[in-house]
Amino acid sequence: MRLLIVGAGGVGAAAVRIAVRRAFFDHCVVADRDLARAEAAVSSADDPRFAAAALDASDAGAVEALCRELRITHVLNAVDPRFVMPVFNGAFAAGAHYLDMAMSLSQPHPERPYEKTGVKLGDEQFAAEDRWRAAGRLALCGIGVEPGLSDVFARYAADTLFAEVHDVGIRDGSDLVVEGYEFAPSFSIWTTIEECLNPPVVYEKNRGWYVTKPFSEPETFTFPAGIGPVECVNVEHEEVLLIPRWIDVRRVTFKYGLGNEFIEVLKTIHKLGMDSTKKVRVGGVDVSPRDVVAACLPDPATLGDRMHGRTCAGTYVTGLGRDGRPRATYLYHVVDNAWTMREYGSQAVVWQTAVNPVVALELLAAGTWSGAGVLGPEALPPRPFLDLLTEYGAPWGIQEL
Amino acid sequence: MRLLIVGAGGVGAAAVRIAVRRAFFDHCVVADRDLARAEAAVSSADDPRFAAAALDASDAGAVEALCRELRITHVLNAVDPRFVMPVFNGAFAAGAHYLDMAMSLSQPHPERPYEKTGVKLGDEQFAAEDRWRAAGRLALCGIGVEPGLSDVFARYAADTLFAEVHDVGIRDGSDLVVEGYEFAPSFSIWTTIEECLNPPVVYEKNRGWYVTKPFSEPETFTFPAGIGPVECVNVEHEEVLLIPRWIDVRRVTFKYGLGNEFIEVLKTIHKLGMDSTKKVRVGGVDVSPRDVVAACLPDPATLGDRMHGRTCAGTYVTGLGRDGRPRATYLYHVVDNAWTMREYGSQAVVWQTAVNPVVALELLAAGTWSGAGVLGPEALPPRPFLDLLTEYGAPWGIQEL
Repeated sequence: MRLLIVGAGGVGAAAVRIAVRRAFFDHCVVADRDLARAEAAVSSADDPRFAAAALDASDAGAVEALCRELRITHVLNAVDPRFVMPVFNGAFAAGAHYLDMAMSLSQPHPERPYEKTGVKLGDEQFAAEDRWRAAGRLALCGIGVEPGLSDVFARYAADTLFAEVHDVGIRDGSDLVVEGYEFAPSFSIWTTIEECLNPPVVYEKNRGWYVTKPFSEPETFTFPAGIGPVECVNVEHEEVLLIPRWIDVRRVTFKYGLGNEFIEVLKTIHKLGMDSTKKVRVGGVDVSPRDVVAACLPDPATLGDRMHGRTCAGTYVTGLGRDGRPRATYLYHVVDNAWTMREYGSQAVVWQTAVNPVVALELLAAGTWSGAGVLGPEALPPRPFLDLLTEYGAPWGIQEL
Repeated sequence: MRLLIVGAGGVGAAAVRIAVRRAFFDHCVVADRDLARAEAAVSSADDPRFAAAALDASDAGAVEALCRELRITHVLNAVDPRFVMPVFNGAFAAGAHYLDMAMSLSQPHPERPYEKTGVKLGDEQFAAEDRWRAAGRLALCGIGVEPGLSDVFARYAADTLFAEVHDVGIRDGSDLVVEGYEFAPSFSIWTTIEECLNPPVVYEKNRGWYVTKPFSEPETFTFPAGIGPVECVNVEHEEVLLIPRWIDVRRVTFKYGLGNEFIEVLKTIHKLGMDSTKKVRVGGVDVSPRDVVAACLPDPATLGDRMHGRTCAGTYVTGLGRDGRPRATYLYHVVDNAWTMREYGSQAVVWQTAVNPVVALELLAAGTWSGAGVLGPEALPPRPFLDLLTEYGAPWGIQEL
């Protein structure tokens, strides 16, 4: 396996630190628009299998050329979702397999943006399904923690724990705090704005996919491992688009445990128009307001040593158990920031995102996972993934509710 | 009187529309960094007494040169408070009298920013008091609506209604709403951030001036004319610095009826660091985050035709009445947006700010008001001001509480 990791930001750098401990690949090139950032990630690995390269992820031709030049077999896309399509297309053109942790972006319905879906998350990628299958190439989409591990949990529950699945609700929450800042999100504010302010998508078997107003269906979910109750609201997320394609289910939602403070901050960002990515003219220059919001906040990837607490990703499944009786189970994965910092020098949220595609790559290298076309994680057997994740030192849990 | 209005924004343009109906001045030059904006204000006046000029208000030398070239006798500063000192100094150097509606900016105390004052509002201007007095020139500072009319009310109450003044509390509130926008402040967000996020200053006779944390001493004040109850909090404002210099009083506060929604928005802007005026690097350019917030919101001066409701400025005075009995009186000025739009094509808040310096200029032209040095409005006889304001079509009121 000759791997190209596109993006040496928080998640890309953490993927390097995780992969360096494993033997499944022969060569790994880390590419970033900022070559120095790629070189820093490679130098932290201190392993001759790694090399750095400069790459503009918005240029599919450049992605293709780099893959061909380096004889890349697998591309792991670790840049923000604006660049999904050029990396996806560049990998295909070069004949490589492809993995990402977020899917192509949505566009709202032109007339009824809070009722009907327009272009859905991943639609652009699924439109290329036939090409990928015919070429015998795999695009394994949404294989971070959410989407990713959350989808694996859904498949595992459907295969093993339930006779009939009714609701699948992804629930994400944490008790992470960052010391020394009045406000410091632990994940990319750019992406958080994108997923929280877009109309959240919901799936229902009899209705198909539809969207609601942002922050709909608030719910207090009690997370395990002492994290406790957190206010969760619907947000737009890939699992809602992925799970019903492979699992027979009545309803799928994704609720993010933003907490009331963060919800109010996001509402205000929207109220002020600061969520916009359309450039505005300010004092003779043009800037994207959302980029300014991101620039004013500390880079979450650098906050690990000021952060403490745990983050929990998981899948809440209800339905009928194998015994035919009602069952409600939360399958989850908790990561403690103190552990990820000590073991990997990565903060918990980026580490938890990065470990999953590395596990998936190892399964692909071994042939335990294989496939062709545009697939979600729930299209592949879940148990080997969960077992290898545990071997990586990050076990998962089950709680009956 | 040969007048220079510096700034053809909302307030400057409204001052032109008000002044054009009066005969007290011979010539009025409207100057702006953006010549086209100055020309638009002048062309709306359609009166040969008016002319437009280009001027950089941050350049005291340029202000002086323009005043000398045009033989200006009075400068009305209508740009934002960042430019108070260059316009003030430029007017002095040219031998002109000077009026403004906001005073030189404060700087926080370096060690105890929420307890002690550092550089106070107006300190830089009062430091020049001797020079102005010796030169026989008048700097009439803070002669908008607040500061301005609010100070005149305080002086009127002290002279006429009260034997002993205890507390003077400026209270500002409105029921203005802007249709078609989720959020659209009716006054400059740049200035609102400045006055609301700086530590609010309070005066007490036994303690002098001190500051608190932002949004302190919340109070629901019921405004007259049907506006009703509005949540008010302490903000930094000139009246607190001006009134105790001329009126014997125990305590002075300024509370702004922001309402809960606006308070939360301002807290969030601060939390995100978007109140900062220090430039940040974004995508290869440097911008001030506060300027980006302002650029994302509609220009309040252009919102008059989508706005409805009334705005109220006033001064709440407690103490002992002329009969020696406890008295609590609110002196106020209510302006209805429908009236200002119909009569002047200006929205209510900028009109209410702009009318007061025009009234003051007319009193100065007539010799009814005169003086030398750096003075606040409460240094001059209040009754002629209140009577002329009524003649301008904007009467004031008194409510016993």
